[in-house]
Amino acid sequence: MSSSPSSDAASLPLDRRSWLKATGLAAAGLALGGSPRVRAQHEVDRSAVSAGPAKISGNENPYGPSAMATMAIMQQVENAARYPAAADVRRLIELIAARNGVEPGQVLLGNGSSEVLSDYATWITRKSGPGEVVAALPGYLKFTESMAQLGSKIVVVPTDANLVHDLDAMAAKIGPATKCVYICNPNNPTSTVVPAAALKAFALEASKRCPVFVDEAYLELADDFEGSTMAPLVAAGHNVVVARTFSKMYGMAGIRMGYGLMPAEDARGASTVNSNHLGVLAVAAAIGSLEDDAYVTETRAKVKAERDKLCALFQQLGRKYAEPQGNFVFVHTGMPVTLFQQKMAAENVLVGRAFPPALDWCRISIGLPDEMAMCHAALQKVFAG
Amino acid sequence: MSSSPSSDAASLPLDRRSWLKATGLAAAGLALGGSPRVRAQHEVDRSAVSAGPAKISGNENPYGPSAMATMAIMQQVENAARYPAAADVRRLIELIAARNGVEPGQVLLGNGSSEVLSDYATWITRKSGPGEVVAALPGYLKFTESMAQLGSKIVVVPTDANLVHDLDAMAAKIGPATKCVYICNPNNPTSTVVPAAALKAFALEASKRCPVFVDEAYLELADDFEGSTMAPLVAAGHNVVVARTFSKMYGMAGIRMGYGLMPAEDARGASTVNSNHLGVLAVAAAIGSLEDDAYVTETRAKVKAERDKLCALFQQLGRKYAEPQGNFVFVHTGMPVTLFQQKMAAENVLVGRAFPPALDWCRISIGLPDEMAMCHAALQKVFAG
Repeated sequence: MSSSPSSDAASLPLDRRSWLKATGLAAAGLALGGSPRVRAQHEVDRSAVSAGPAKISGNENPYGPSAMATMAIMQQVENAARYPAAADVRRLIELIAARNGVEPGQVLLGNGSSEVLSDYATWITRKSGPGEVVAALPGYLKFTESMAQLGSKIVVVPTDANLVHDLDAMAAKIGPATKCVYICNPNNPTSTVVPAAALKAFALEASKRCPVFVDEAYLELADDFEGSTMAPLVAAGHNVVVARTFSKMYGMAGIRMGYGLMPAEDARGASTVNSNHLGVLAVAAAIGSLEDDAYVTETRAKVKAERDKLCALFQQLGRKYAEPQGNFVFVHTGMPVTLFQQKMAAENVLVGRAFPPALDWCRISIGLPDEMAMCHAALQKVFAG
Repeated sequence: MSSSPSSDAASLPLDRRSWLKATGLAAAGLALGGSPRVRAQHEVDRSAVSAGPAKISGNENPYGPSAMATMAIMQQVENAARYPAAADVRRLIELIAARNGVEPGQVLLGNGSSEVLSDYATWITRKSGPGEVVAALPGYLKFTESMAQLGSKIVVVPTDANLVHDLDAMAAKIGPATKCVYICNPNNPTSTVVPAAALKAFALEASKRCPVFVDEAYLELADDFEGSTMAPLVAAGHNVVVARTFSKMYGMAGIRMGYGLMPAEDARGASTVNSNHLGVLAVAAAIGSLEDDAYVTETRAKVKAERDKLCALFQQLGRKYAEPQGNFVFVHTGMPVTLFQQKMAAENVLVGRAFPPALDWCRISIGLPDEMAMCHAALQKVFAG
């Protein structure tokens, strides 16, 4: 770098807004220079820049945050002492509502979708009392555990032979005590999706009897997001809730922003449960993310390319895996997952934790190309041995 | 600025860590150039840089985040796609524990202390059932409202003639149904503190009968933080909870980090309620803040100086006010607070909301010197009229 910029405020030009814009851009450029995204784009040799392990255990998306989100963060750091401006929160809600064809009053924001899940669980229990929640296993347990803590019984429905939600079996479990049905689509940890038409038919029918909660945390990474989201059912007024997050597609796991789309009455009710203020950087980054369509298209393609390569390797190695649509693959290890984790860690690759009852399966997240190269080499060694 | 840095990743030097460090510093310098802190230090004429109102309504501390926290944020933006590293969370917990003389297992982190308040309310209700919570009025209602949502009855004890917690009256309200006593010290909105010796004696006695929750959100801004905190009672094993936040003294309201100090059993229990992942920027900024003692000393002095000037003006204008120790002053308006808000807003000064039942009092936060100058001018006009 030929020179560094002055940090002396006395040298500020008078037009502070233009200045901030310029320096925000510069700062974002600086940071992006070192970001995984740019590293990946420039195919930097990982061995030259880091000796750390490939961390492909947490379903993080290392391509994010998008350039526009990063810029927004840099520009907002000077407002970090402030609670988010009401106008900014409103703008984010309106953007989300417009994109999903719902009313702003149907949007509930949270510090990640985890807050939306737990707040909705609290709200629905307050509204209709504890009872039963129907959910798949293996599955993501945050929502069902919240319901259980609030006194509901978890009614577990095993996934089918392909590790996909068994909608017929789930429908059969809905009874007078059911307070909610929870579908994670794509499912975590299996990465499988339910066929859109089948899910729509299920949701239309089931939502006559209880709320249908569809957790779409990973759906934006799937091949057909537009055709698979259940948001139109929320817009049409059905008793359906859709949860989304900026943690996955938008690579904002460390910044915390998520939302739910739901009947306006429930959005109002659940917002009274909300215990946390939103972050000012998170609001700005979320708005920036929604304005960065190029990032979405490119990132989805990159994740899919690496996911396809990983599946091809599993085929070559003769390993079973669930048909994936998220940024992760659930593979049959043929050994206890804890042992598999150890063997992979010995190769400097960190993979997913145990997801009972599938204790001889492992969830592997899609990392950067160099991380996936390390992963491929490790898998070949571990599965050959 | 003579030149702007290159945003081309191809120009990265090989030693990425040094490079990041250098650019992180540069980026922080850039952002700080425009921050309120540096603006204040350089006494920039506000009219030249912003036509916005003086927002002294939200008890924000515009001097923050500290330079070290800002730098930490800038350096962590490239990790924003990641959940916080366990080692970083552990380091923050250990720093907090060491500073307060408690065990790491007695520290509960949250997205702001608001999460600590609501999680503890949920936990204590789960542990011992709903009952009664004893609290002062006017007071901060987040905790009592959480308890009420969980089925407890709020037993309100009016503050005394000086708007200070009436500890004797509160002690008298503790009975077999009491699940918790809540003391906000300094109190919000009154900004008053309870004499340390009296609070300690109260807490020692009351904690034999129920948990004593002391919310010290603003205590680090008070004249005698060290002598006034109840953290030593937590360390000594009493049934006392102390809540703190990085939102106030450390000016991180928009970044979200707070913590509670409490018996280890309760920290473990409340952590099972915790619905939200922490932010990676928040963890880094909190660690940076705790390493920036100079910021604390300087900021406390600046806030106190402006608080003293505001009180002097109230004396000159013959207005009653509560003796303040936080970064805000509660003043008798002699008119409905909603009318007072309107009159101040007409002078481009935004002041605090209504705090029932004190509807002819107003909470005014301590802003930057130029904001306080606008406030003084407005007060002279409004109170003269």
